[in-house]
Amino acid sequence: MAEEKQTKEQDQLKGTEVTEEEQVNLEADGQAEESQPVQFEKQIKELQERLEEQENKYLRVQADFENYKRRARLDLEAAEKYRSQRMISELLPALDNFERALEIEADNEQTKNLLQGMEMVRRQILEAFKNEGVEQIPSVGEQFDPNLHQAVMQVEDEAYESNAIVEELQKGYKLKDRVIRPSMVKVNQ
Amino acid sequence: MAEEKQTKEQDQLKGTEVTEEEQVNLEADGQAEESQPVQFEKQIKELQERLEEQENKYLRVQADFENYKRRARLDLEAAEKYRSQRMISELLPALDNFERALEIEADNEQTKNLLQGMEMVRRQILEAFKNEGVEQIPSVGEQFDPNLHQAVMQVEDEAYESNAIVEELQKGYKLKDRVIRPSMVKVNQ
Repeated sequence: MAEEKQTKEQDQLKGTEVTEEEQVNLEADGQAEESQPVQFEKQIKELQERLEEQENKYLRVQADFENYKRRARLDLEAAEKYRSQRMISELLPALDNFERALEIEADNEQTKNLLQGMEMVRRQILEAFKNEGVEQIPSVGEQFDPNLHQAVMQVEDEAYESNAIVEELQKGYKLKDRVIRPSMVKVNQ
Repeated sequence: MAEEKQTKEQDQLKGTEVTEEEQVNLEADGQAEESQPVQFEKQIKELQERLEEQENKYLRVQADFENYKRRARLDLEAAEKYRSQRMISELLPALDNFERALEIEADNEQTKNLLQGMEMVRRQILEAFKNEGVEQIPSVGEQFDPNLHQAVMQVEDEAYESNAIVEELQKGYKLKDRVIRPSMVKVNQ
């Protein structure tokens, strides 16, 4: 497309040259119809109009260029900011299963040691998540917020305020200001 | 910066207007020094030069714009392609520890069940890595390649070819065409 535009520009340059030739013709034969100063003035006016047009064209492309730069910078920033979203979304089910497996009560020394090792791994994973800007969404005890929480059950419990979250069924996560997965919760009526 | 340029352009536009005024002056008083046609021709020549200059300026900014678009596209593609690199680099030590913990020999039913569950989690994590373009670097039996492998020990083993990898001490990973971490290996002399 750039080439196309350039060709168009070159045509316009040629246009200018033709005008110069025309001028010569006018000087040679055109005097029967118009006086030379009138022809000169016409030509000057035409050139001035063209110049102004060309200057406006230049200003427009400059403005487009600046807009494009701004947009490209924003696109790149957004791509950077949420770069880990897909990876994290894919890892969350693995993390859920991992944490569920860690909930067992060890009945022997080997299991106990294995669970301790795995707990360390869990903390390492959560640390890596945190460094990328991932946070767990607070739920139990908080007021229900449809932007952060997904209500899957309702209960009546006088120990909690109305609309408070009573239990978390699945953890929710945010990546910076974006909710990747709302927490699944039980809400008080 | 865009504003600065625009102001400059407007000055040039004003420049044109001044020339028009000058033309009027020339028409009124300048005839003592130069004949009117000569003045007109001078003015036409000057306008033509300016027009050509402005057209060239336009072509240059157009070309800059096209280059910028191309570069911005490449930047965005690279940001997309390697977007998960930092996240993965941070998760690799957790994965190493996780896999090391899974190497134990279960001596009871509970540990055996826990290991089975964790093996599923490991496969889920590797699947998520694979979907993001992460691959394990092949090592044992391969020829040593300094771009992929880091030799930490040398051995003499007639069962292997010269320069072949005999043992892997830590797994290496690639993200698409980029090595995130070379594998640490033992190499045959």
